[in-house]
Amino acid sequence: MAAAALLSVARQPSRTALFAFTRSLGTAPTPPRHSFDKISAQHISALKQIVGGDANCFTDATSLAAYNADWTGRYRGSSQLALRPPTPRAVADALKYCTQHGLAVVPQGGNTGLVGGGVPVYDEVVISTAALNAVESVDADSGCVVAGAGVVLQALDEELAKHNLMVPLDLGAKGSCHIGGNVSTNAGGLRYLRYGSLHGSVLGLEVALADGTLLDLLSTCRKDNTGYDLKQLFIGAEGTLGIVTRVALQAAPRPSSVQAAWIGIQTFEDVRRALRLARRHLGETLSAFEFVDRASLDVVLEGQHASMRLHDPLPDNPTPFHALVEVSGSNEAHDTEKLEHFLEAASEEGIAVDGTVASGGRQLAELWAIREGISEALARRGAPVYKYDVSIPLSCWYDIVTDMRARLSEAGYNDSSGVRVVGYGHMGDANMHLNISSLEVDDRIGNLIEPWVYEWVSSRGGSISAEHGLGQMKASAIGYSKHPEAVRLMAQIKDVLDPSGTLNPYKVLPSS
Amino acid sequence: MAAAALLSVARQPSRTALFAFTRSLGTAPTPPRHSFDKISAQHISALKQIVGGDANCFTDATSLAAYNADWTGRYRGSSQLALRPPTPRAVADALKYCTQHGLAVVPQGGNTGLVGGGVPVYDEVVISTAALNAVESVDADSGCVVAGAGVVLQALDEELAKHNLMVPLDLGAKGSCHIGGNVSTNAGGLRYLRYGSLHGSVLGLEVALADGTLLDLLSTCRKDNTGYDLKQLFIGAEGTLGIVTRVALQAAPRPSSVQAAWIGIQTFEDVRRALRLARRHLGETLSAFEFVDRASLDVVLEGQHASMRLHDPLPDNPTPFHALVEVSGSNEAHDTEKLEHFLEAASEEGIAVDGTVASGGRQLAELWAIREGISEALARRGAPVYKYDVSIPLSCWYDIVTDMRARLSEAGYNDSSGVRVVGYGHMGDANMHLNISSLEVDDRIGNLIEPWVYEWVSSRGGSISAEHGLGQMKASAIGYSKHPEAVRLMAQIKDVLDPSGTLNPYKVLPSS
Repeated sequence: MAAAALLSVARQPSRTALFAFTRSLGTAPTPPRHSFDKISAQHISALKQIVGGDANCFTDATSLAAYNADWTGRYRGSSQLALRPPTPRAVADALKYCTQHGLAVVPQGGNTGLVGGGVPVYDEVVISTAALNAVESVDADSGCVVAGAGVVLQALDEELAKHNLMVPLDLGAKGSCHIGGNVSTNAGGLRYLRYGSLHGSVLGLEVALADGTLLDLLSTCRKDNTGYDLKQLFIGAEGTLGIVTRVALQAAPRPSSVQAAWIGIQTFEDVRRALRLARRHLGETLSAFEFVDRASLDVVLEGQHASMRLHDPLPDNPTPFHALVEVSGSNEAHDTEKLEHFLEAASEEGIAVDGTVASGGRQLAELWAIREGISEALARRGAPVYKYDVSIPLSCWYDIVTDMRARLSEAGYNDSSGVRVVGYGHMGDANMHLNISSLEVDDRIGNLIEPWVYEWVSSRGGSISAEHGLGQMKASAIGYSKHPEAVRLMAQIKDVLDPSGTLNPYKVLPSS
Repeated sequence: MAAAALLSVARQPSRTALFAFTRSLGTAPTPPRHSFDKISAQHISALKQIVGGDANCFTDATSLAAYNADWTGRYRGSSQLALRPPTPRAVADALKYCTQHGLAVVPQGGNTGLVGGGVPVYDEVVISTAALNAVESVDADSGCVVAGAGVVLQALDEELAKHNLMVPLDLGAKGSCHIGGNVSTNAGGLRYLRYGSLHGSVLGLEVALADGTLLDLLSTCRKDNTGYDLKQLFIGAEGTLGIVTRVALQAAPRPSSVQAAWIGIQTFEDVRRALRLARRHLGETLSAFEFVDRASLDVVLEGQHASMRLHDPLPDNPTPFHALVEVSGSNEAHDTEKLEHFLEAASEEGIAVDGTVASGGRQLAELWAIREGISEALARRGAPVYKYDVSIPLSCWYDIVTDMRARLSEAGYNDSSGVRVVGYGHMGDANMHLNISSLEVDDRIGNLIEPWVYEWVSSRGGSISAEHGLGQMKASAIGYSKHPEAVRLMAQIKDVLDPSGTLNPYKVLPSS
């Protein structure tokens, strides 16, 4: 494949167009509204005072629209009040008021989630942490950065770049998402293979609890074994246990060199061999191993004429599978040599039948644009996109795509009827993004997919949410990945921290 | 310094001799025995049946002695019954019986802890997970290993080596400690700088709860965002919330090359510069940056004539500070070049005034033997060793040593009176091991050290236990590192999981 058979798509997809046609599909029925109080003029007046006046308090329809709808357009609530407290203390005080007065609350960060976790289901009060947007300190020696929950991921990364450091986390939504939201959803993304989970890199948190306590767990120590590691509870709790107000994070050294190869592969078994080979040859420099199947690539290539700029023609017949293999490190020459050795070996062993290398700059961005353009290209096809973010053992990782294709094809849904089943994702982490795109609305498709897809994943010991969380979308499906006694224990912990259920109702745990 | 001015000391210190003279010092008074039931013949008979008979049930004084005393000789209980259940289910059943009958339990792994967390305080029933010693599965593709809690760390590492994998954890006690105990204490150790905390690398756990539930959180997925990450609660809970019975762990690729340099440095400010330089030049290959002060080195060198074999004389006048800098990676030539560049830069900038390089094998083991021989050499000086494992910001990291020396010296305790204050540790993680050795028992020394040392650490935002945990030793000192509302929340969580307080009483949390 030519080096630049690639598209210049911004890594941050447009928040307006994307998923415009995606509707709420395959989710459980919305649970009935709990008996929370309704917002009154008196509540508004009191909360306005708590958060410092009109400037931080929104009740008009125009402002509320942005707080009520998620960026996919799939989830929409009807909150009558959104607050933007200027300090962590004000977050805690507003939350305390809501708890005391029987009002429900939905915490909101950058509102870039994919499972409806950050928007109201009904009329919950929105508490946004957007105003907590200061990078408070960077310790260049230890790599510890302390930031308000509302700091945008990209802004945090740019601040760290001044110290030759990097956030150990990267997402397509980096230009909009907040570090507080990243922590609350335990965001995964593109650097996970190398830097692991936020459970490992978050050093400390400050969290506003439902009773108004501002819980100070904001350790900046890299090692601290004094009692239960409570901060872990709030990482990935999607705002149901407390509102993260400040984050202390272990930054990573910023690599001075980033390079990547795009390789074409004939069989999935050979993709697995390529991953093993990459681990062996690239070792500590391997920073991404992303998988793209032919169907995913086709969707991107078909979409390019309408909205994207084509640099170069692709070969006539791309291979069935593709891998984007990235290395990053502290010594460009070493990294180049490692990448070359890997590519030589992959070629000699007949694994890579096609390939191109990009070393920083535009070429690298173009390679990533293909991988990151899939989701947008699918949305542009029109009609619903059924999106599943799952973990599956590598031994049967791609089977979910072929099994799903066979299942839908048997029912008459295939390429010629406009239904596409595509698979791509973070294969280095066993994280598959299975997407089904159709050209028109058809409830039968949804019924063919769910709950079959969850059962498939569950029976193979996978996770029905690898990195997106449960939110509204999958709260009722938690049982496919967690045993009843674990779900019960979660509910008990929820009860300790938020006995009146103020925080983010109808999310994460099945509604009682 | 000559390459081999070094000692051949086994990395696993002798469990019998070490700390023979170390007494329980500086700890809070032992809390009174809670009103648990006493063990009866009926209890023994019932529990014997649960764990599968005589072979797994110990009541004789000789057997009990090993379960009752920790390896430092500092903590000693008086349990009348030790159980070694053959299966996780039997662990849970034995625990359930104890809870139902008002008996207290202390879970025990390899019994290598340093804070008395794994031995009884009074007559708690010991439940050892030593029989759960099977490595159950290794997925060479994903790097996920599933093992019983009783697998010895070194055995686990050797099993993983067959798959070119490695446990992302290494300790001096690797020959004796168990992976279940490592998880329960959130063990840190020598690879932490590179691979981070067990909070990041444990994928799943199976845990026996006080009520007999065998909680299955044994995910083998690298990514799983389905609800609260409950397993995190048990990592570092020191057996007070449940007994870890099985562990799923993300192994790391095994490096094919390990090399190290020992450098001599004149000032502590230059040690900090050396760490920065190491991060820049060694990048992703840096696997350890260990600090040894002159006083620590002197203790090792003085001890060598008595018990260790000297290979080569040291220079007449070693520098005040030393760093052991290790690199490991997938390409020996690259790693060598990086290490050379680092040493050249350190030399050109006047940071390293002395240095030696070891590349694998005996030389490398000898360098590590100095670093790991400090603790044993201190114990061999005789009389008490006051040991503190703390996190301190690097900006004042070594001040605790000089401040402690000044404090004791003012009171007449100095080198000429046989009192040595030494500092060493995992400087790359800001983890200081402060040790005070004296030649005779003197309560005044203990009173000069505590609580001053905890106040000193606390006032600088450090942690009073970086990696050893709280156990018996520091349960009452938790307030120096955690706010009251955090300690209260810990107690609430303890109450959810173990309402009758069966599990490991008198440990971690202050006794009520």
